[in-house]
Amino acid sequence: MKAIILFGHGARDNRWREPFDRLAELWRQQHASTPVALAFLEMMSPTLEEAVSLLSAQGATQITVVPVFFGQGGHLRNDFPALLNACRKTYPQIALSATPAVGEEQAVLQAIVDFGARAL
Amino acid sequence: MKAIILFGHGARDNRWREPFDRLAELWRQQHASTPVALAFLEMMSPTLEEAVSLLSAQGATQITVVPVFFGQGGHLRNDFPALLNACRKTYPQIALSATPAVGEEQAVLQAIVDFGARAL
Repeated sequence: MKAIILFGHGARDNRWREPFDRLAELWRQQHASTPVALAFLEMMSPTLEEAVSLLSAQGATQITVVPVFFGQGGHLRNDFPALLNACRKTYPQIALSATPAVGEEQAVLQAIVDFGARAL
Repeated sequence: MKAIILFGHGARDNRWREPFDRLAELWRQQHASTPVALAFLEMMSPTLEEAVSLLSAQGATQITVVPVFFGQGGHLRNDFPALLNACRKTYPQIALSATPAVGEEQAVLQAIVDFGARAL
């Protein structure tokens, strides 16, 4: 079974995660047959490994991780691949892949441009 | 004259800013009559105040700042309003407003969900 993890940075302020909760809810409404979990790099839970464990317990065998980050700096170029490799070692039975950061996606950038244009 | 500032967090790795440069380029292609500037909270330049100065020199009188952040944590709830107020004091002739973070925009979240769905 396929599943998806929406992976964010995390922050001290708990309200920071609200758009991530909305993202997961939107996913559930539109892709109910594909389980979704959030995961965070730091300061929020669950971790990436905890999210993989959760989805594995639900029967996931192929998990795609979507980094919900704009830029690809040290977190995505260094920390994230290391976390992903650690998860692959802990869960060798799961096919774990990752997309580029959502900031690489033209439709995301276009939605931001349109949002700005409406606000002028 | 109206203008827009796309305001991001900033990072040590210079490649982190690539999606921001693409965002500004997309804006220029589609809204050529409304000048755009990037600005960063930390670790990258220009600062918000430098971006306001730049656009003011180009003749901007009304500037909308779009926080290109997903979550609204301490940076957007505390640091950003303080920076915005400092800019208002330095440039009282400019009408400076701000939108919510782009993570509050449903179309942005939908574009992320669609990106994830295509990657499965």
